[in-house]
Amino acid sequence: MTLPRKDLFDLPEGVIYLDGNSLGPLPKGAAARAAEVIGREWGQELIRAWNTADWITLPARVGDRIAGLIGAPTGSVATGDTLSIKVYQALAAALKMRPDRRVILSDSGNFPTDLYMAQGLIGTIDKGYTLRTPAPQDVAEAITEEVAVVMLTHVDYRSGRLHDMKAITEKAHSVGAVMIWDLAHSAGAVPLDLAGSQAEFAVGCTYKYFNGGPGAPAFIYARPDIVETVEPALAGWMGHNAPFAMEPGYRPAMSTERLRVGTPPIVQLSILDAALDVWEGVDMDALRAASIALCETFIAEVESRCPTLTLASPRNAAERGSQVSFAFDHGYEAMQALIERGVIGDFRAPDIMRFGFTPLYIDTADVVAAAAILEDVIEGDLWRDPKYQTKSKVT
Amino acid sequence: MTLPRKDLFDLPEGVIYLDGNSLGPLPKGAAARAAEVIGREWGQELIRAWNTADWITLPARVGDRIAGLIGAPTGSVATGDTLSIKVYQALAAALKMRPDRRVILSDSGNFPTDLYMAQGLIGTIDKGYTLRTPAPQDVAEAITEEVAVVMLTHVDYRSGRLHDMKAITEKAHSVGAVMIWDLAHSAGAVPLDLAGSQAEFAVGCTYKYFNGGPGAPAFIYARPDIVETVEPALAGWMGHNAPFAMEPGYRPAMSTERLRVGTPPIVQLSILDAALDVWEGVDMDALRAASIALCETFIAEVESRCPTLTLASPRNAAERGSQVSFAFDHGYEAMQALIERGVIGDFRAPDIMRFGFTPLYIDTADVVAAAAILEDVIEGDLWRDPKYQTKSKVT
Repeated sequence: MTLPRKDLFDLPEGVIYLDGNSLGPLPKGAAARAAEVIGREWGQELIRAWNTADWITLPARVGDRIAGLIGAPTGSVATGDTLSIKVYQALAAALKMRPDRRVILSDSGNFPTDLYMAQGLIGTIDKGYTLRTPAPQDVAEAITEEVAVVMLTHVDYRSGRLHDMKAITEKAHSVGAVMIWDLAHSAGAVPLDLAGSQAEFAVGCTYKYFNGGPGAPAFIYARPDIVETVEPALAGWMGHNAPFAMEPGYRPAMSTERLRVGTPPIVQLSILDAALDVWEGVDMDALRAASIALCETFIAEVESRCPTLTLASPRNAAERGSQVSFAFDHGYEAMQALIERGVIGDFRAPDIMRFGFTPLYIDTADVVAAAAILEDVIEGDLWRDPKYQTKSKVT
Repeated sequence: MTLPRKDLFDLPEGVIYLDGNSLGPLPKGAAARAAEVIGREWGQELIRAWNTADWITLPARVGDRIAGLIGAPTGSVATGDTLSIKVYQALAAALKMRPDRRVILSDSGNFPTDLYMAQGLIGTIDKGYTLRTPAPQDVAEAITEEVAVVMLTHVDYRSGRLHDMKAITEKAHSVGAVMIWDLAHSAGAVPLDLAGSQAEFAVGCTYKYFNGGPGAPAFIYARPDIVETVEPALAGWMGHNAPFAMEPGYRPAMSTERLRVGTPPIVQLSILDAALDVWEGVDMDALRAASIALCETFIAEVESRCPTLTLASPRNAAERGSQVSFAFDHGYEAMQALIERGVIGDFRAPDIMRFGFTPLYIDTADVVAAAAILEDVIEGDLWRDPKYQTKSKVT
């Protein structure tokens, strides 16, 4: 199997898509699968499809496929809900494991919703918990014996900075803290050895590098040796040991299934299932090597063409995920100008132009072409056109 | 507009579908809309579709359509997640409004996940909360000044028994309790005047009478005059006042949008949006009259044909939702036999054969035909065939 595999995706003509780290493109099999699920399974089988189309085991089957891509064992990943919900579940469960401690440690570069969910949980429990968010580079030394839980996003959404999963997890465990990794920007982007890290929990989303479509379901991992002690905060019927017994009392499933909550989003889970087909036969180390090559080429091209821009990602590839960011005071306008010219990246406040590199459907020629168009926009001052000043609803 | 409107649905040949109260059938427009969202919006627009296809406002637009069907004002309903999650949000917010009380009152007929989510929240907060579940008919007198929150499902999922929304809400308010209604089995089934009830919160799902498809997103209502005081437990970025400002601190939106959590499931929300088209021009009082007529016919037909069965729903139509249940010790086997003969209802443990009547696509001839087939199964002992004894995964 060689990369890229552009033939597996429906990519629009004339577009270089460097935003698969925000929303992956459409895998060809996904549309057909959706039509099948909607037209035949739902339309013709109706309620029977829970059995006849095996909807009932779909969340677990998709979880197992994700497990295989993040270095986790079969049966250790549950799917459904959104990443925000999965963060809440992991954090609430982790706090229960360290009832005598009151500090949640994250970092200032974490994606806002992770911090917000922690804040919401702290307010709900209302027992004096504190959320600490040092700068990413200061996290390791902030892991002290006061800390109940270390909750970090592995790859920084703005800069692409990569935490050392194994070293930080070891540090957390050395002081008795529980470790939660958010893999939003690393699942499908970098090789992961979740089981080897010994982290208790991990969460992630599937609409980025897994190409599951807009609003695709999230996932959660719990380390198999602790899962039976996890107390689910979101004790939904699909996490019950016998959901269809309709018992009045909650009894959690004896597996990661206890981290499921409500009725699964069958259509979006099916699309995700089909989308995961593009990973068949992909070697994650080869993917990583290709990703690094694309990122290095982009950095070199942009730095030689656009002296106005400042690299906002680690220069060392080993400290970077599969994205490259440049800072530019007029980044918002410049990104609009770039998108209009067929190079799609995105902007993250206050000044970050962000580009994702996904070797499944991006090659070196794309990267060089994108850099040349970026040069026109930045050094040719195309971003100054007044039409790029108007903010859209989503930036 | 007359009922039924069978032409708006893709119904399989040879099936009488009396399980729309579990999973509504496929509205014709839904499949085309899904293909458009997947193929053109996601496939061609990619990340730009948040703006160009207006995905960003889709949750609110769908919420407004639901509001119009449940007697709630525009802007008061947020969509997304599952019903279980929405129950948790409403309950957590309600408990914050009565910090000096420690009793949650529900009833023993409530759908299990509502009770489970309450149990999970109680465990998470861990401050001595109690969940009381008297029998449905004893709820009113159990509403005392100890009660922080009354949380009930309006129409009982097993029996179809209907609570008096206005009277119970008034009773709750008379003792200073907060009222939460779960509309899972009433939204799209009976006329609702949520605003008139003065209940603080309501939640519901959309894959039953709203025909949104398997795992369609849920909804939550907060009374407009209190929404700005609601403290979100699930403080996700989509409920933030400025999600794309990427601020480190959570500031809730100044509307029901604060009860949104993570990235919305765009494909399933779009299907739901298309599914709601079938409600254009439907008069809810006319729908209710048609529903009652269908249920009354079914009860009369079954009672005359099947003396073996015992009515497990209220006999008085005014105390019943849009479903009819019969108790039968071998209900599981009988339902399998019935389904094999094209009459699809469902079974709810321990002994309930449940039939939903949805005047959008069921007429009197369907009801009479279904009763005749039920007679064959029950009085003709067809259910005794050994092949119906094997339990499927979902019952």
